[in-house]
Amino acid sequence: MSKTARRVEEQVLAGIQPVAMALKTNPAAIRELTVTAGTRNQRVHDLVMLAKDAGIPVREDRREWLDQLAGYDKHQDIVAHLHGQAERLEADLLPLLSAVAGDPLVLILDGVEDPHNLGACMRTADAAGVHAVVIPRDRAVGLTPVVRKASAGASELVPLFQVTNLARTLRALKEAGIWIAGTVGDADTDLYQQDLTGPLALVMGGEGRGLRRLTAEHCDYLLRIPMLGQIESLNVSVATGVCLYEIQRQRNAR
Amino acid sequence: MSKTARRVEEQVLAGIQPVAMALKTNPAAIRELTVTAGTRNQRVHDLVMLAKDAGIPVREDRREWLDQLAGYDKHQDIVAHLHGQAERLEADLLPLLSAVAGDPLVLILDGVEDPHNLGACMRTADAAGVHAVVIPRDRAVGLTPVVRKASAGASELVPLFQVTNLARTLRALKEAGIWIAGTVGDADTDLYQQDLTGPLALVMGGEGRGLRRLTAEHCDYLLRIPMLGQIESLNVSVATGVCLYEIQRQRNAR
Repeated sequence: MSKTARRVEEQVLAGIQPVAMALKTNPAAIRELTVTAGTRNQRVHDLVMLAKDAGIPVREDRREWLDQLAGYDKHQDIVAHLHGQAERLEADLLPLLSAVAGDPLVLILDGVEDPHNLGACMRTADAAGVHAVVIPRDRAVGLTPVVRKASAGASELVPLFQVTNLARTLRALKEAGIWIAGTVGDADTDLYQQDLTGPLALVMGGEGRGLRRLTAEHCDYLLRIPMLGQIESLNVSVATGVCLYEIQRQRNAR
Repeated sequence: MSKTARRVEEQVLAGIQPVAMALKTNPAAIRELTVTAGTRNQRVHDLVMLAKDAGIPVREDRREWLDQLAGYDKHQDIVAHLHGQAERLEADLLPLLSAVAGDPLVLILDGVEDPHNLGACMRTADAAGVHAVVIPRDRAVGLTPVVRKASAGASELVPLFQVTNLARTLRALKEAGIWIAGTVGDADTDLYQQDLTGPLALVMGGEGRGLRRLTAEHCDYLLRIPMLGQIESLNVSVATGVCLYEIQRQRNAR
């Protein structure tokens, strides 16, 4: 991490529900808790017990300081400080992938604009064994507090690369021997007909718009998820989960 | 539908983004649009053109009437009236399933409390060919406007049964020859090791809590989704998508 670390911001989660979720699903992402000194909120006390059991330091402080940490006063007397993810340099993507044991798996999100969706995709990426997530710097939401919250802490776990030129990154991945699979609603091939083993980058389009034309042109093949009802598309995080788990199923069946 | 219809409410979606989403993903769910007379919003005019192309009637009315329809004033001059889903009687679940061609597939959500999640699950259920969704009446969110919006219209498409006693419904399904598969994080069997063909009801737990003990006891078998990273669980709608698509993959591979 040290070589790629350029900027580390203080990352916090505020409020009982987000902190409880992170403690439950991903305690390793929490560096420390701060709670309001003398709080009488029983749920805060319960979370403090949980945190102490998990070996997470807990500090008490004045309510005004929690207001500042959270950026607002709806923190319900509890704030979790996360181990922040350093901003990664584009140049470090290929070295990271070449250090992977086995076949690398990359998730590329082409213009996901809803922070809940980006967070849910990061959470899904961690669960499905993705080695790196790539998003375009200018057309997508970045690592905002809402993203962190929706990701249940995964935003601090999965290496995230914000690239300035997605087409250039796709070319570099191809030159490194990684296949590029795009998902579009009207592709001829269905997800389950395609061999998805081997080094792979899965490209998912943003909400509504789908893949950009230029992005689709850089894909080695295009896939569609079968839609068996009347709805024409899945939520992007659900579609991401369906594709990533099919990739892992095929890898394990090999 | 006529025999099971007991109450039909006026179901509306308000605002440019929700109406655009429904028009794009599920125009069949839209009965009619109402727009503010004389609106100068170009995006509303674009949606009116789209609706007319899709054969959906468009009416103009006073802004105050749209405020009433939407229940607030942030409708951005556009409201879509949906073909509402009638409330279904529990007694109609088994007859509906026995009328299904092929093996029935039921999705049971045991206490999903977040309306976005219920909406996303309904959308996923439609896409993955689910014949009926079952939720407990008292412990879960119902068909609220937020659910409708998150479902992209699927909430009006997939038959939804709100049952008063989930354990009783599970017993009735079993007696009808339908297998009950529950998902829990610490199950011995992984999703991909289990034969999921045949008549099946998939039971997903709510956020955080997972399956209730009594529900788990009524399952014929318990499954876990492999978690390959540090996060301990997927978002419930993503988990639902991963399971339902694996069921359909196995059915088609048979």
